[in-house]
Amino acid sequence: MTDTWLETLITETPQQGFELAITLSRRGVRYTQPDPAVLKKLRPDYADSAEGLVAASQVVAVNFQTIAAANNYWRPATQG
Amino acid sequence: MTDTWLETLITETPQQGFELAITLSRRGVRYTQPDPAVLKKLRPDYADSAEGLVAASQVVAVNFQTIAAANNYWRPATQG
Amino acid sequence: MTDTWLETLITETPQQGFELAITLSRRGVRYTQPDPAVLKKLRPDYADSAEGLVAASQVVAVNFQTIAAANNYWRPATQG
Amino acid sequence: MTDTWLETLITETPQQGFELAITLSRRGVRYTQPDPAVLKKLRPDYADSAEGLVAASQVVAVNFQTIAAANNYWRPATQG
Amino acid sequence: MTDTWLETLITETPQQGFELAITLSRRGVRYTQPDPAVLKKLRPDYADSAEGLVAASQVVAVNFQTIAAANNYWRPATQG
Amino acid sequence: MTDTWLETLITETPQQGFELAITLSRRGVRYTQPDPAVLKKLRPDYADSAEGLVAASQVVAVNFQTIAAANNYWRPATQG
Repeated sequence: MTDTWLETLITETPQQGFELAITLSRRGVRYTQPDPAVLKKLRPDYADSAEGLVAASQVVAVNFQTIAAANNYWRPATQG
Repeated sequence: MTDTWLETLITETPQQGFELAITLSRRGVRYTQPDPAVLKKLRPDYADSAEGLVAASQVVAVNFQTIAAANNYWRPATQG
Repeated sequence: MTDTWLETLITETPQQGFELAITLSRRGVRYTQPDPAVLKKLRPDYADSAEGLVAASQVVAVNFQTIAAANNYWRPATQG
Repeated sequence: MTDTWLETLITETPQQGFELAITLSRRGVRYTQPDPAVLKKLRPDYADSAEGLVAASQVVAVNFQTIAAANNYWRPATQG
Repeated sequence: MTDTWLETLITETPQQGFELAITLSRRGVRYTQPDPAVLKKLRPDYADSAEGLVAASQVVAVNFQTIAAANNYWRPATQG
Repeated sequence: MTDTWLETLITETPQQGFELAITLSRRGVRYTQPDPAVLKKLRPDYADSAEGLVAASQVVAVNFQTIAAANNYWRPATQG
């Protein structure tokens, strides 16, 4: 891909970090399957499936772990 | 999502941290499938399935790992 | 849940830490499916299934990783 | 379980650490299914199955990660 | 394999790190199945499958975690 | 097993580390199923299957994470 979509892992809040984890998870899918038409067609297969949703949530959890570490867990500065 | 649901990863006790891990896991699902009706319909597919419950527990475990690290494992202050 | 079941991640021995990891894994399941009757009914689906047992062991491994880190791996004090 | 089977995560060599990871993985299974007759019956379901073997290897990998960290990766003392 | 394909985990930007994580994930597959004809034949099995794409994204997430740690999360130098 | 196959996690280059991760992943399988004839028979089940290859790549990713940490990510000495 030639566009720039990830310039930093640093976010202001944990919630923005979680949303960045969603983005990373989706990008991981798009690098494997770049065709938007295929992605659209497949969406119900996981978004309407309990197993698919839990698996997607697992990927988000791993990416959030990375982003949270990058941000020192958004700890208040005095806590170190 | 426009609501604020995650302001900090810091909790007072490990149990509150575990419960926050549950919240993160559910939110991971809701970002992928925001429609409450679909989520409700799918719930028995994992909550009444051994495989689904173990998979959900795996997501919670990864999120708890992140939250526990953020809280320095709730170690007593003297332990470092 | 209103009961207190997790007050600390610190244990005296690695084995107690491993057993706490079992507890966390089971609690992860119970937050998703709190009905004991359903849990009892589903138990053979993973406890009598090779795939289910390995998946359960994976959850325990992730939780043990968290607990072991919390306890500084129960290293002797002189080792740092 | 009342027997003591895990007294330390520290091993002399990486290979002993890997073998301890095997032990942890098997114990994770046995806490869920303590009946040796059931375990013996299920063994071919994963030991003679490609999917089962890869899943078992995944559990070993996570446990080895924990044990390797506990042992500071068996780095030579001068390396820090 | 005799060619050199991985000389460093250090990248200039997070996005390059993410793309390196894609490379590692694919190489993991190629070490197991080096035959390009087989790989090509199997590609639709995961690239056109929701479950396959999410599983691939999970591998990328784990590899990105490694690469992000290697790069100190590309934090600005003043942040430490 | 009585042979010595893992003496150190330290490698000279990231690529050698990745190849060691492959070795660990295969050894994890062999501890569960030591019979070479069975392993040979099962090989097509994952090496010729998209799902099996991605699962194998996931194990490699976890083992590479361990080895990369052991080697301080092969960072140049001046980088710390």
